[in-house]
Amino acid sequence: MAKQPKSAISPTRAEDYPEWYQQVVKAADLAENSDVRGCMVIKPWGYAIWENIQKNLDARFKATGHENAYFPLFIPMSFLEKEAEHVEGFAKECAVVTHHRLEPDPAGGLRPAPSAELQEPLIVRPTSETIIGATFARWVESHRDLPILINQWANVVRWEMRTRMFLRTTEFLWQEGHTVHATEEEAVAETRQMLDVYADFAENVMAMPVIKGEKTSGERFPGAVATYSIEAMMQDRKALQAGTSHFLGQNFAKAQEIKFQNVAGELEHAWTTSWGVSTRLVGGLIMTHADDDGLIVPPKLAPAQVVLLPIYRNEEEAAKVLPYVEELKQELEAQEYAGEPVRVKVDNRDMRGGEKKWQWVKRGVPIRAEIGPRDVAEDGVFVSRRDLGGKGQGTPRGEFIQRISATLNGIQQGLFDRAAKARDEVTVRIDDLDEFKEFFTPQNEDHPEIHGGLAYCHFVDTPEIEETLKKLKVTVRCVPIDGDDEPGTCLFTGQPSEKRAVFAKAY
Amino acid sequence: MAKQPKSAISPTRAEDYPEWYQQVVKAADLAENSDVRGCMVIKPWGYAIWENIQKNLDARFKATGHENAYFPLFIPMSFLEKEAEHVEGFAKECAVVTHHRLEPDPAGGLRPAPSAELQEPLIVRPTSETIIGATFARWVESHRDLPILINQWANVVRWEMRTRMFLRTTEFLWQEGHTVHATEEEAVAETRQMLDVYADFAENVMAMPVIKGEKTSGERFPGAVATYSIEAMMQDRKALQAGTSHFLGQNFAKAQEIKFQNVAGELEHAWTTSWGVSTRLVGGLIMTHADDDGLIVPPKLAPAQVVLLPIYRNEEEAAKVLPYVEELKQELEAQEYAGEPVRVKVDNRDMRGGEKKWQWVKRGVPIRAEIGPRDVAEDGVFVSRRDLGGKGQGTPRGEFIQRISATLNGIQQGLFDRAAKARDEVTVRIDDLDEFKEFFTPQNEDHPEIHGGLAYCHFVDTPEIEETLKKLKVTVRCVPIDGDDEPGTCLFTGQPSEKRAVFAKAY
Repeated sequence: MAKQPKSAISPTRAEDYPEWYQQVVKAADLAENSDVRGCMVIKPWGYAIWENIQKNLDARFKATGHENAYFPLFIPMSFLEKEAEHVEGFAKECAVVTHHRLEPDPAGGLRPAPSAELQEPLIVRPTSETIIGATFARWVESHRDLPILINQWANVVRWEMRTRMFLRTTEFLWQEGHTVHATEEEAVAETRQMLDVYADFAENVMAMPVIKGEKTSGERFPGAVATYSIEAMMQDRKALQAGTSHFLGQNFAKAQEIKFQNVAGELEHAWTTSWGVSTRLVGGLIMTHADDDGLIVPPKLAPAQVVLLPIYRNEEEAAKVLPYVEELKQELEAQEYAGEPVRVKVDNRDMRGGEKKWQWVKRGVPIRAEIGPRDVAEDGVFVSRRDLGGKGQGTPRGEFIQRISATLNGIQQGLFDRAAKARDEVTVRIDDLDEFKEFFTPQNEDHPEIHGGLAYCHFVDTPEIEETLKKLKVTVRCVPIDGDDEPGTCLFTGQPSEKRAVFAKAY
Repeated sequence: MAKQPKSAISPTRAEDYPEWYQQVVKAADLAENSDVRGCMVIKPWGYAIWENIQKNLDARFKATGHENAYFPLFIPMSFLEKEAEHVEGFAKECAVVTHHRLEPDPAGGLRPAPSAELQEPLIVRPTSETIIGATFARWVESHRDLPILINQWANVVRWEMRTRMFLRTTEFLWQEGHTVHATEEEAVAETRQMLDVYADFAENVMAMPVIKGEKTSGERFPGAVATYSIEAMMQDRKALQAGTSHFLGQNFAKAQEIKFQNVAGELEHAWTTSWGVSTRLVGGLIMTHADDDGLIVPPKLAPAQVVLLPIYRNEEEAAKVLPYVEELKQELEAQEYAGEPVRVKVDNRDMRGGEKKWQWVKRGVPIRAEIGPRDVAEDGVFVSRRDLGGKGQGTPRGEFIQRISATLNGIQQGLFDRAAKARDEVTVRIDDLDEFKEFFTPQNEDHPEIHGGLAYCHFVDTPEIEETLKKLKVTVRCVPIDGDDEPGTCLFTGQPSEKRAVFAKAY
């Protein structure tokens, strides 16, 4: 007897989590691998989610006084050399442009033209601190020119050896904020402000609970004085760094000669910050909310919040159903959710009803409404909520419309609550090293993946404990900003500790 | 005696048009040259104009059924070889990635690591027909999968030898539409539809009159069956190709194996199109509307449509002026223009009033309103329109607010009318070769730049006339779609001609 599939996605999360992830990306039409190693094609449904992420974040950046600009894709090789830690961090994995012309190869095909070799190779930007810093050095003369608050939406390239769609790709899309300030205090405040913007966006728009914290010295951005991050917990008990905000001190200002004349007329080096989130957020969205039937998109990010599926078998039924559906669409669009008209899509493609319905299940549209002749006769709709699963239920049309905003809000909040509960269930405090080791070691032979989570432990930031962590494949995620301040003893060194850090296996 | 500057921009258009262009780009804070050869930095004011261009076009693309997606920055070298004309067109000017790592150079500094040479070089996309076509080949199986209507917002790189900000840069930003159809008719209709979208956008949003037409065989996109363009006339009597739409026939479908099963169950090659506009549009905007005082931005694209400039000399005056200005801002923002709230900026920076005012003149904000204590006392504002120049005038507050939408509309229409008039004044029909040569030869020794324009002439599309045109530095811009169809005689060959083409010197 053939095995009955339990779910739309095969394998399930319990059967093979990494493969489940790839299958959700595929089934939800989010992205696919391209013909270029490590680069993905972001398909329309995946890109529409990214556009909503962009739109929401962009409004938040502008509301906090930032302006968008655009800087070159290429960075002269010599620019990377100016900041010693920075070159160490990025030179090993970058795409290098060496020629500016192809010519016919005598052996057949094409080749880079030897006569068109660049005097200085160019790097495809892995991040833009160096090229933007060189620009800022021209823009800044006086304290009156400060602060400079700039954001860029762009593609960047890091030559990753092991890639996974959205989570780690050779080329990815992101935004990078770059700011210049007259004082250390202002720059630190900016760094923390943007961390708050990211955390608020993650929790209230993506419905993804996050921990805000500071990275330890070994995990800092190359060249930064302090790196802050938001850390989310995925369903496989691994953490995901979902956004970072860096206080760069005067390091880049000194490397790039960003100086200003202060009120007293003296020349000073400025203080800079940088902060970014990327298409990796889509990976976080999947691993926070998707289930064994595919993606679930929180209403605030859903390209369509409601999909209407007309059902009819002949022209006569179509003549009843289609105008009813069109009117319903307009009535729904007249409603608002989160300050915008409700986003409604009618899917009237000529294909099997079951197949069509499952496409939208897998893509994660929050609400599906099927409408057949009987629904029209009863002035109703057959409504299914993606987050609840199950069969759906008949609902009077008026009630459906009137409650649509509240329903979407309930879904948004419900997704957050569910994710927060899942995270809390795998969050522990550990004060004993053996217990720590046990927590991060598989215990269940059938399900070796079920172990670990978020462990809050006392800790002193020294390199010597890295050996222990490395063996367990555990990392320090961050020292939480909002954590308790009670003193204790470092789990690894026995030294006195002021605060707990969060430990987890991670992407 | 020192020479009194006549205008904010020096030199003026009449004195040195190319240098005037560079100075407007600088004075309006649009962009600047970067540390990377041929690449520019787009500054916040320039980028905000580009964002408005994007937003408006994106809505038009979506309204015509297109979805956004994202494809890789890199194209494997072998992909270029598949379409013979295409490789001819782009191989000579492309950035080639050959290595994926840098390492310390024994001679000092860094070098591309010899051990990290790519097996196959990658090209930074100059345009994406080949990589997108390869993707589409995977997406298309049946006639039910068609049409595919995709757009991408992206950066592209063409290694130009002579660059000029916005008009021709090594890296530029653009959108590229790529569509696949089951029939030739549909693909041709798509090509023409998108040309219409571009023309309508150019005229009704950019206030830039354009001629829609088909390119001659020598000017086609490499690999296209037919290329259509919109052509605008700049103030220096040179034409600017402002957007193109290509009917690619089955050329790329054959090169990339894009096949579908038709209704009869047979495999057919599909029909494809592509179409694009770029940051070059900002160059067209400048050369259509800017004057010797700097940029003039049409209201529909202006990041700020009204700038409010509070004027006060002490705290007491500030206490009167600032709340009045804030209230005025809110009242203006409650008004709508072109379906959106009026965009208002208050500039309360601490700098000399004259300098501040001239910044906004040079940036081209449509309306400036200065407000000092006397204006507050009289419940008025001192209003200046950028398009009219001159000193401005006192206006009752209520009238200013109530008429703001009509005023912006008048400016938008006035800019279009002025540009159309300027174009018509340099547009001629020519039926004699000597007259043609005279038209395109400088006549005025003091102003050699004042000659030429748009010449409508009978013409047969053969390569042999190119010698004549080359000597005069004249090009065929296009064969206008909306032109008269009366038959005539080719100016160059004496052969019978069905239609006139438009000739001009061009960017």
